[in-house]
Amino acid sequence: MVETLRAPAQRAHGLRIDGTRLWASLMALARIGATPKGGVCRLALTDLDRAGRDLVTGWAREMGLAVTVDAIGNVFMRREGRAGRNPALPPVMAGSHIDTQPTGGKFDGNYGVLAALEVLRTLDDHGITTEAPLEVVFWTNEEGSRFVPVMMGSGVFAGAVPLDHAYAAADLEGRTVHAELQRIGYLGAEAPGRHPVGAYFEAHIEQGPVLEDAGITIGAVTGVLGIRWYDCTVTGMEAHAGPTPMALRRDALQGATRLMQEVVAIAHRHGAGPHGQGGQGGQGRGTVGQVLVHPNSRNVIPGRVRFSIDLRNASDALCEAMDADLRASAARLAGDSGLAVELQPVSAYPAQPFDADCIASVEQAAARLAHSCRRIVSGAGHDAVYLARLAPTGMIFVPCKDGISHNEIEDARPEHLAAGCDVLLQVMLERAGIAA
Amino acid sequence: MVETLRAPAQRAHGLRIDGTRLWASLMALARIGATPKGGVCRLALTDLDRAGRDLVTGWAREMGLAVTVDAIGNVFMRREGRAGRNPALPPVMAGSHIDTQPTGGKFDGNYGVLAALEVLRTLDDHGITTEAPLEVVFWTNEEGSRFVPVMMGSGVFAGAVPLDHAYAAADLEGRTVHAELQRIGYLGAEAPGRHPVGAYFEAHIEQGPVLEDAGITIGAVTGVLGIRWYDCTVTGMEAHAGPTPMALRRDALQGATRLMQEVVAIAHRHGAGPHGQGGQGGQGRGTVGQVLVHPNSRNVIPGRVRFSIDLRNASDALCEAMDADLRASAARLAGDSGLAVELQPVSAYPAQPFDADCIASVEQAAARLAHSCRRIVSGAGHDAVYLARLAPTGMIFVPCKDGISHNEIEDARPEHLAAGCDVLLQVMLERAGIAA
Repeated sequence: MVETLRAPAQRAHGLRIDGTRLWASLMALARIGATPKGGVCRLALTDLDRAGRDLVTGWAREMGLAVTVDAIGNVFMRREGRAGRNPALPPVMAGSHIDTQPTGGKFDGNYGVLAALEVLRTLDDHGITTEAPLEVVFWTNEEGSRFVPVMMGSGVFAGAVPLDHAYAAADLEGRTVHAELQRIGYLGAEAPGRHPVGAYFEAHIEQGPVLEDAGITIGAVTGVLGIRWYDCTVTGMEAHAGPTPMALRRDALQGATRLMQEVVAIAHRHGAGPHGQGGQGGQGRGTVGQVLVHPNSRNVIPGRVRFSIDLRNASDALCEAMDADLRASAARLAGDSGLAVELQPVSAYPAQPFDADCIASVEQAAARLAHSCRRIVSGAGHDAVYLARLAPTGMIFVPCKDGISHNEIEDARPEHLAAGCDVLLQVMLERAGIAA
Repeated sequence: MVETLRAPAQRAHGLRIDGTRLWASLMALARIGATPKGGVCRLALTDLDRAGRDLVTGWAREMGLAVTVDAIGNVFMRREGRAGRNPALPPVMAGSHIDTQPTGGKFDGNYGVLAALEVLRTLDDHGITTEAPLEVVFWTNEEGSRFVPVMMGSGVFAGAVPLDHAYAAADLEGRTVHAELQRIGYLGAEAPGRHPVGAYFEAHIEQGPVLEDAGITIGAVTGVLGIRWYDCTVTGMEAHAGPTPMALRRDALQGATRLMQEVVAIAHRHGAGPHGQGGQGGQGRGTVGQVLVHPNSRNVIPGRVRFSIDLRNASDALCEAMDADLRASAARLAGDSGLAVELQPVSAYPAQPFDADCIASVEQAAARLAHSCRRIVSGAGHDAVYLARLAPTGMIFVPCKDGISHNEIEDARPEHLAAGCDVLLQVMLERAGIAA
């Protein structure tokens, strides 16, 4: 074989994954829970999730991978490194999740798992052995649609979510994570987190519009934005729209809309970069997604408006500054409107920067493969956020159509998916080393 | 009797209604459809409405009044004028409605009907005969809660709503006005509108905060504001709150909130008087009462926001100016935001000024009775709006607690209700004339 005559690094640089095979595996998995609108509904720990897990682990076993399951249902599919040497070398791990949103797409999560599997298949094709073992992983219940919290499997793995807490989480019918893991046969014996990790990579569709908008194929993800969630309630006095003169109104919606506009202004004040670039400067994002008006009647002045606030930024310090700005705005509104303004924190996730070497490794691989690449922050959470607490971690983004995700029309181009998978192959090989 | 020795005008000026009897009749009617929270649910043309109608017409028959019902179920209770003279003299009419909102109060509508009945009882007490006949009326389905349009009975009576159209109106179970009128026994023979009206007076709780706020007992209503209703839909692009940088968003809610604030600004630009005073200047009112956000999820940038707009003012010209201002604001938003803005007119009611003599008559009566009085516009529609197209019309407002109406906690003070009824007695007698 030609490859054996080249130096290991040279051999690695010439490798290419099989984009057609990757696509075929994505489409095969997407048939489980396929929706009429072309999406996927495969909620965590349902019968469909079991069927998806069985399909992927079946493929793994056919490839000769060793499949282990931990006590929260995370599944590890292991390809051994060079036998006899460095038996304790921790695996280079890659993966994501295969559960979906109720109206989810074919690529979110699934791509990261099947891209990692495709990397291992490509190594098999070329008879390449790595120094360190390689592992493909899928984490339980990343989406959090059926059971909260989100990113449950990786959260338990990283020690951020207590196992008992996760076990007790129940869906709307009262079925618990523990019972459902047992029922579908994925309640493993291994204590979560006891599994060593040398490095972790996760390939993912961007779920945003930045790469597509800029015409870029590969995003080298610098980290994940910190998140602050709030519920805000503005209370005035409900009254009839006709008989109540403007001067005698306490219109909760008029106050609430001022604060809703402030949420966006705060994002701009705290460094809303023009294209979501990582690195220097802020990445402020501010969103009001949910609004409930009471009594919500055409001819009644709203007496109470409750709305959600979502603030994000690239560092905890910037999130803190946005928080202070929001509290000041709420206090100003309460002070000059005569309305009651209650700002209730709902949850907060710290910002998580990724490993500098991993980021550079993704950039260099993209450059070698002649794919356009730029640094990008992730505005959404991923399992990689928790893995970054345990090991050097990086993420590879590829564009998705119109930036749409968590939607049945979620779509991505085969050549972009293949490019991201090629980059994943490079960075995994670089970390794991090719056995001479 | 002392009264017979005085001149007729003197006799009238000394008359006082029986506030205790008025209150007792209000409480008796309020027991039919009484709700646990102290309100009334007596929807138009239900069995409860029939029971209410039967109670009031029963009282009328005990008083010797002639009861007639027209083809839309409006009920007229007639006390004849001086026999033999002026047989064609049209009646001086007073009343309102006895149907309620689903969570209605004891006074809205009911007060106007029972106050008119109390006026006739007081004349009976004192053996007073008027020159013109007097009629107490209640109009069918003023509230419009079960059947649209609102003010149906008076609208048909005034020729503004075709009888066939009203008959065909159906509730949520598909039962029509015609069928329900027949079922409850209030489908009369008289063609609506064939009934002559010499003048019409309606006593009503204010349903707003102006009188209470100013500490005034009697409102001499100058007219009813014109109303323009719209539905506005702002469409952007729904996207994930995390991965979408500010510069790449098309946030429908941010655009919608700009326009929601404009609705209030427009009201102020078009003469929002400080206390809803009638007469010179505008009476601009602007309300956004209903908001529907899509998809209304905490971490999704809203793709579409639909909301209601309610504009009111004292003249049609002012309503027209507000309409133009609103359209310009919507066009500006569409032009500079990249959002689609659709403004859909829903309905429009012209402004209706009341008769100058009737207004003055209310003011003079209040002055004679030593009740504080001011001119006030009505922001809400009343049956009097339609009657004003047929005959000289006036309204008498009395304060209600906290300006609250269309609510089970609607409340009014007995002394205010009695004062309004005393004024009604004066203005009816002045119009009808006392037989010597």
